[in-house]
Amino acid sequence: MEVAIVGASGYTGRNLMGKRLNQPEFDIKAVTSDSNAGHSVSKVHPNLRKKTELKFIKNSELGNYDLIFSAVPHGVAMKNMRTYIKHAEKIVDLSADFRLKNPKEYEKWYGHKHECPELIEKFVYGIPELHREEMKKANYISGAGCLATSAILALYPLAKEGLIETEHIVVDSKVGSSASGSKADLADMHAERANVVRAYKPSFHRHTGEMEQELNFNGNRPVISFSPHAVDLVRGILSTCHVFLNKNLTEKDIWQVYRKYYSGEPFVRIVKEKDGIYRYPEPKLLTGTNYCDVGFERDENSNRLVVMSALDNLMKGASGQAVQAMNIISGFKETEGLEFFGLHPI
Amino acid sequence: MEVAIVGASGYTGRNLMGKRLNQPEFDIKAVTSDSNAGHSVSKVHPNLRKKTELKFIKNSELGNYDLIFSAVPHGVAMKNMRTYIKHAEKIVDLSADFRLKNPKEYEKWYGHKHECPELIEKFVYGIPELHREEMKKANYISGAGCLATSAILALYPLAKEGLIETEHIVVDSKVGSSASGSKADLADMHAERANVVRAYKPSFHRHTGEMEQELNFNGNRPVISFSPHAVDLVRGILSTCHVFLNKNLTEKDIWQVYRKYYSGEPFVRIVKEKDGIYRYPEPKLLTGTNYCDVGFERDENSNRLVVMSALDNLMKGASGQAVQAMNIISGFKETEGLEFFGLHPI
Amino acid sequence: MEVAIVGASGYTGRNLMGKRLNQPEFDIKAVTSDSNAGHSVSKVHPNLRKKTELKFIKNSELGNYDLIFSAVPHGVAMKNMRTYIKHAEKIVDLSADFRLKNPKEYEKWYGHKHECPELIEKFVYGIPELHREEMKKANYISGAGCLATSAILALYPLAKEGLIETEHIVVDSKVGSSASGSKADLADMHAERANVVRAYKPSFHRHTGEMEQELNFNGNRPVISFSPHAVDLVRGILSTCHVFLNKNLTEKDIWQVYRKYYSGEPFVRIVKEKDGIYRYPEPKLLTGTNYCDVGFERDENSNRLVVMSALDNLMKGASGQAVQAMNIISGFKETEGLEFFGLHPI
Amino acid sequence: MEVAIVGASGYTGRNLMGKRLNQPEFDIKAVTSDSNAGHSVSKVHPNLRKKTELKFIKNSELGNYDLIFSAVPHGVAMKNMRTYIKHAEKIVDLSADFRLKNPKEYEKWYGHKHECPELIEKFVYGIPELHREEMKKANYISGAGCLATSAILALYPLAKEGLIETEHIVVDSKVGSSASGSKADLADMHAERANVVRAYKPSFHRHTGEMEQELNFNGNRPVISFSPHAVDLVRGILSTCHVFLNKNLTEKDIWQVYRKYYSGEPFVRIVKEKDGIYRYPEPKLLTGTNYCDVGFERDENSNRLVVMSALDNLMKGASGQAVQAMNIISGFKETEGLEFFGLHPI
Repeated sequence: MEVAIVGASGYTGRNLMGKRLNQPEFDIKAVTSDSNAGHSVSKVHPNLRKKTELKFIKNSELGNYDLIFSAVPHGVAMKNMRTYIKHAEKIVDLSADFRLKNPKEYEKWYGHKHECPELIEKFVYGIPELHREEMKKANYISGAGCLATSAILALYPLAKEGLIETEHIVVDSKVGSSASGSKADLADMHAERANVVRAYKPSFHRHTGEMEQELNFNGNRPVISFSPHAVDLVRGILSTCHVFLNKNLTEKDIWQVYRKYYSGEPFVRIVKEKDGIYRYPEPKLLTGTNYCDVGFERDENSNRLVVMSALDNLMKGASGQAVQAMNIISGFKETEGLEFFGLHPI
Repeated sequence: MEVAIVGASGYTGRNLMGKRLNQPEFDIKAVTSDSNAGHSVSKVHPNLRKKTELKFIKNSELGNYDLIFSAVPHGVAMKNMRTYIKHAEKIVDLSADFRLKNPKEYEKWYGHKHECPELIEKFVYGIPELHREEMKKANYISGAGCLATSAILALYPLAKEGLIETEHIVVDSKVGSSASGSKADLADMHAERANVVRAYKPSFHRHTGEMEQELNFNGNRPVISFSPHAVDLVRGILSTCHVFLNKNLTEKDIWQVYRKYYSGEPFVRIVKEKDGIYRYPEPKLLTGTNYCDVGFERDENSNRLVVMSALDNLMKGASGQAVQAMNIISGFKETEGLEFFGLHPI
Repeated sequence: MEVAIVGASGYTGRNLMGKRLNQPEFDIKAVTSDSNAGHSVSKVHPNLRKKTELKFIKNSELGNYDLIFSAVPHGVAMKNMRTYIKHAEKIVDLSADFRLKNPKEYEKWYGHKHECPELIEKFVYGIPELHREEMKKANYISGAGCLATSAILALYPLAKEGLIETEHIVVDSKVGSSASGSKADLADMHAERANVVRAYKPSFHRHTGEMEQELNFNGNRPVISFSPHAVDLVRGILSTCHVFLNKNLTEKDIWQVYRKYYSGEPFVRIVKEKDGIYRYPEPKLLTGTNYCDVGFERDENSNRLVVMSALDNLMKGASGQAVQAMNIISGFKETEGLEFFGLHPI
Repeated sequence: MEVAIVGASGYTGRNLMGKRLNQPEFDIKAVTSDSNAGHSVSKVHPNLRKKTELKFIKNSELGNYDLIFSAVPHGVAMKNMRTYIKHAEKIVDLSADFRLKNPKEYEKWYGHKHECPELIEKFVYGIPELHREEMKKANYISGAGCLATSAILALYPLAKEGLIETEHIVVDSKVGSSASGSKADLADMHAERANVVRAYKPSFHRHTGEMEQELNFNGNRPVISFSPHAVDLVRGILSTCHVFLNKNLTEKDIWQVYRKYYSGEPFVRIVKEKDGIYRYPEPKLLTGTNYCDVGFERDENSNRLVVMSALDNLMKGASGQAVQAMNIISGFKETEGLEFFGLHPI
């Protein structure tokens, strides 16, 4: 299969390449970046030194491929998508531009009109655990947001089964600096970003729209109270979801619900141990992997259930999950290129 | 005033000394530590090098003083308190042993009977913003928990005014490693503790009892859904409190509520700005200070209010607040020894 | 005394303000920053919230003062100095522009001609431990470089006494991110700067010129082999100086040499202990203080002596030392405003 | 091939397993740990969750294998080695006990007599780049020290060619906390170990002996002036080697020397670029990989050459290099199991 990566100079593009470089059935033909055109890939992505001879080309030099990964920013993808689909049969888009099914939602969460609404319905929202069957019949994937993925995988079984109060769902996320992208800005300078616990967007974060769309079951759209926090970490997300059960469930009952949905999943593990340091999901253990670890604790004092989910924002939260979805739409084994199981300590 | 610090080899003892060493009206006569008896203080607390000639004495060598700060662990303080009160007229205890008014609560949260119940009622819970008038008449202070202080100061105005749903109060805290104390254990080793976002006690944390006691107004004891997280930070706490308003309040209304309670407070600042990097409370700015910064954001999408509070767990969360309370019960100026306003960047 | 701080929006300007705000005899009349003119100081320096009502003015609005601190960048200070000296009798310049005595050296280390050579000789190099007597008679101070200060204070006693091989002096420094200044650039983004040990300028670093000038005794200009490294730290420098003794000296002999020069110094401590965690100088203990801790170890295997020096690059390495020098030229007590003795742990 | 890992509960044992679990020709039959016997491996090594069903056995339960990796501590390995060689034909020992060829050296550097001197000469020192041909004929490998590996690979070409002053070799290393091992101790607690630059052993570090042994060419044993520093990092070493050339060599000459020795090496890369952030070796890029990146800069001001080398202390500095050596003595492809090329940013 011949592949191009458009907008390949950022963190997600880099991690896409990382996953694919060592796979024989996968032929990365082109990587584009207007600002880096002519430079070798390892200049921008130093961990790929001596691993590839690829050089960046301009976006205008794009040829025809079997599949295009688009890693251009939000707003740009919707402008270019009509072009990309002429260059490839299959598309995996990593921007937010084709995640929300209702074009009006872009105005609400992103503040501008959608410029390519006719293509929205052709994209499948990119979490395989929710949309695997649709993906098998699709050509276009819209990669899910990193924070959204963590919250959706944490709450999907409960929401699908209708077990929680939909008006009191609190998702409190903690996220590393690589989620801010690879551009220089003052808030992300080391001296300003080290040692922080920063509620940078306490309400109305854009990923809320995705969460509410994907956790909307039985005609009962939930209201997600979402607050992300920057912490002193490069890679990783922990989302702590505080939900209130609408019936009396024991820990055992909840185990059963999660097992029902995830026991066959290759990249979701239920993590909940009685002792040891790592009793619940922790992003520290997942750096570089495509896992989303999910765990929970029943609060004895109330009807609260605490659900924690951890992932690597550049892997299961972006490039890894994109590769997983690409494997599905391309007929590869779903786990191919995603076997790395992490390092510890890190 | 002649003072002794009992159990002075830990982090809270050290920070107490730090505050007091340079104050003429304050005479630290003795610092005790059985394991360090005979050693100079700067051996254990290297930042006090060349700042003090004090040496540790044994607990059994304790004399008589005007005031004793007790920095011994939970469980030990209740065993020793009958002795301490013979050695000093005034006591500031930094353990948890005299925080909860109902002796039964110790069994619930700490798993053992209280061994000195007759003294409980003589202690004032150590947050001056809630108990200043009682403190003025008291001799015994029980220092509040660090996580509890951050949650209580965040929610006190709302709870007192009866503005929030008491069954859906989520407090999601993020805390640095110095809150674990100065003893070596595996979970706090750098290689295991760096780069973590760890939900180490998702429910039933002991500080919940203090929060529910202190936010209990109008006969309406709240249920606090509290989950603390270890993050890669040495000092500092951010508590993000997700509460649901029981009436329709604007941001302006909420400003008024917070101003009513905190505009005259020397150590609580309302932090809420329209732009810049530091728009909300951040512990990064508060290292070494006695401030608790409180800020909020009204969620437009629901009736949620997000209240954030930040503090230094060893200062406003422990030693600083203890000094503040001590100043009150001793007739000193409340801010004395606590004027440090922080360093940035750090 | 009336004071202005020119170029006050960076880290050194901020820390200058921090030291001075709480001092009655010190009246900060103006702080300039063209890009922040009209904004309150606490907007840019959030740790000064509620501590000052000062607003930034434009550089062109500068009036007349007793003393100007200049915190504008290298190259700008030499352009503006003829103006500044019209506005104030005393100048403390924090740039590199008046540190090197020989104008040719600017061409060698900075790559451009000096634009104000006639003023160079009026400036005293800003390390009081070497130039206190000159300072007492001077009006103009050129603040020393942060890395230079750490190396010079480490080696001054040995160089002055002629005890080391001048051709084999290795200074290997490790420095935090705040030394890069407050502007956004890619190399200092958290995701790129966290977890690094980066030899960003293995040879020919500009501070080498200062070190060689100030350690030049007995007509024997040393050759300093200097390599600084960025490490994952916000504030602090540790310089490890590997020197080779030209005569056989015991540890006791070396103690005597260091005591001769530093026993009376308020801000230099000799740190060398037999046991404990903090046996040698560590920047971790010095955050916010004006100390330079110096320690050493005699290598039994060779004639090497390892000298370590630690300081806070924004304090003894910049603003703190500038205040110390200012205190001297203004007739204040040398330690005034610099009494803070640090926090631990941090 | 059937393999056992003895002392498998520490960081090196874990990383050994990580490399080998997914390799068909490799059959890990037993992992021993007296303190964890009966527990599943993933309890101690949480990143191996769902990746292995292995349980720890006691050391006394050891059977017979083709190869034993010994990851027990220094001092223990020499006590047990006579037993291990009865259980396996091939041994890879990760302790320091068989690194030094001269038994007297153990007394000098480790302070005790060697308890199994007759086996020393059968072990090949475990850096393949220096000893590949010997390894091909050997059965026993003694894994090299992590700091020693970084220094030796940095300086080997220069020492072999006789290009440097052997009396003035300074090796200044910076190392992460995972190098201290997985036991709890006070110096490595997060609150004490975060934000440090700590010269924990300025001279006479044990690895000096290995360096001097392995860089001893042409009858000219060098004197290594070695000082390691703890920095705020979990994994990684950067060694900055300051050497003085004994003849006038250009950068081009030095390139040639390094290419002669390393151009064919699969795990040593020469890293030296004209621009970009990552111009020289950095451990940040190497986490989890078996690379040792080596770079250099010629000091124009003197005859100094700065050579930098970076590696992951648990990989090329321990388990990765052990696997590399094991591949050689077992007839596998040298790079097998070591293909991971890292993550960025991390």
